[in-house]
Amino acid sequence: MAGTDRTRLRLEGGPAIVLVRPQLGENIGMAARAMANFGLSDLRIVEPRDGWPNDKAVQAASGAAHVVEGARLYPSVEAAVTELTFVWATTARERGQAKRIATPGEAMIESAAALKGGQEAHGLLFGAERTGLGNEEVARADAVLTFPVNPAFASLNLSQAVLIVAYEWFKAAHGGQPAFAARETPPASRGSVQGLFDQLEDSLEECNYFVPDNKKGIMWRNLRNILHRLSMGEQDVRTLRGVVSALAHGRRSRRHQPTKPPPPGAC
Amino acid sequence: MAGTDRTRLRLEGGPAIVLVRPQLGENIGMAARAMANFGLSDLRIVEPRDGWPNDKAVQAASGAAHVVEGARLYPSVEAAVTELTFVWATTARERGQAKRIATPGEAMIESAAALKGGQEAHGLLFGAERTGLGNEEVARADAVLTFPVNPAFASLNLSQAVLIVAYEWFKAAHGGQPAFAARETPPASRGSVQGLFDQLEDSLEECNYFVPDNKKGIMWRNLRNILHRLSMGEQDVRTLRGVVSALAHGRRSRRHQPTKPPPPGAC
Repeated sequence: MAGTDRTRLRLEGGPAIVLVRPQLGENIGMAARAMANFGLSDLRIVEPRDGWPNDKAVQAASGAAHVVEGARLYPSVEAAVTELTFVWATTARERGQAKRIATPGEAMIESAAALKGGQEAHGLLFGAERTGLGNEEVARADAVLTFPVNPAFASLNLSQAVLIVAYEWFKAAHGGQPAFAARETPPASRGSVQGLFDQLEDSLEECNYFVPDNKKGIMWRNLRNILHRLSMGEQDVRTLRGVVSALAHGRRSRRHQPTKPPPPGAC
Repeated sequence: MAGTDRTRLRLEGGPAIVLVRPQLGENIGMAARAMANFGLSDLRIVEPRDGWPNDKAVQAASGAAHVVEGARLYPSVEAAVTELTFVWATTARERGQAKRIATPGEAMIESAAALKGGQEAHGLLFGAERTGLGNEEVARADAVLTFPVNPAFASLNLSQAVLIVAYEWFKAAHGGQPAFAARETPPASRGSVQGLFDQLEDSLEECNYFVPDNKKGIMWRNLRNILHRLSMGEQDVRTLRGVVSALAHGRRSRRHQPTKPPPPGAC
């Protein structure tokens, strides 16, 4: 999906993403891309199975090469988190540890608030694809982050887990506004809408739409109610007036060409 | 990441995910896996580049083969959405169309509410990897769903885009509770905590910790305040009483073995 604007400031900072013994370069690259999508830049890698650097990671990062290239390599979890002030362990399984548990949304609201002051440095541990984090590594963290997930299929791909956390980070730290807003069209004034209604009413009268005569009141009210649901803008009113005019004009033209049969549906 | 419990009911239903001209089987498979993670099951595919079925899609689905195998193939977007009552177009770029725009969270709250009644069927269109949806396809939708994303790197991978929507669906439709709760340990009673404090105070007195004597009040209060931050459970109190006892007992034993020098830090 496109939409990147390279003239915009690159968002950086946020908590560190620590991948512990990741197996597939593709997952590392996809995680890096997800981080870039949501304004994270601090990627740390502990003992990657296939060594480092990893070409597949660069390939999968697809434009987020700066995150992969800026990644730091560590020999242990301890070394990777040493200067951090708070560490979340992400896990999909209950570990029997009496440790606080938060959802991604709760956790990132907490980290965003803490990091605002500039005194704290947070990080998140993500375990290997097949095994997750070891119990010792979970014990090392301050709290557990886990995912609201279908219990019958709880196995999240590593890069997907990173993505969800990064997405919640962006919502918590940068307000979660969409990348663009709806195209603003000025709302139609009551007068404009009334002009359209008058034109339509006249055209329908000419067309003998309101039959029988004593039903006109309710027929016309129903039709106006349908049109009001459009919450028209000025441009919408102009478009619809053109439509009514074309239909009415077409009918009149046809009246002057009685050799042509009226199209089906014309009054 | 592990954690799947195959004895749990498979969650199904929710809005249809419509992949329009997807290119890579891997992305289709990863999208299917993300759907299964978050309780979606209705996958529709319009004109996949590499044909269908696709081995790479089955492989990448990694346990969510039931979603890939249940996918339905359509010759056009029109055919894929024909029985749906409401369609979201997902897009990362502004399309200059006067159409309502929602974030994934807003959109899925709306769809979850609508689908509850059982009268509506919603769907989401996702465009091809490189190009996204065509303007005609966006125009066909009732509203636009777009992602809160880093404007400097807005290009979401197709399966990551599906994941975010599925994740927000699960939060809106199934309450967003984590897959497991913290292991409950009964909170410690005030009496238990006081027992620990009394034991600790006695031990510290024996150890001449409270020096000078007139500072004891403030020293002891500071220490209790630190310990209160633990919000101890009964098991925590038992663990800490053991720790205090071991330290005090170790010191006493050492007193009876004056040949051994006290370890550094012992009082």
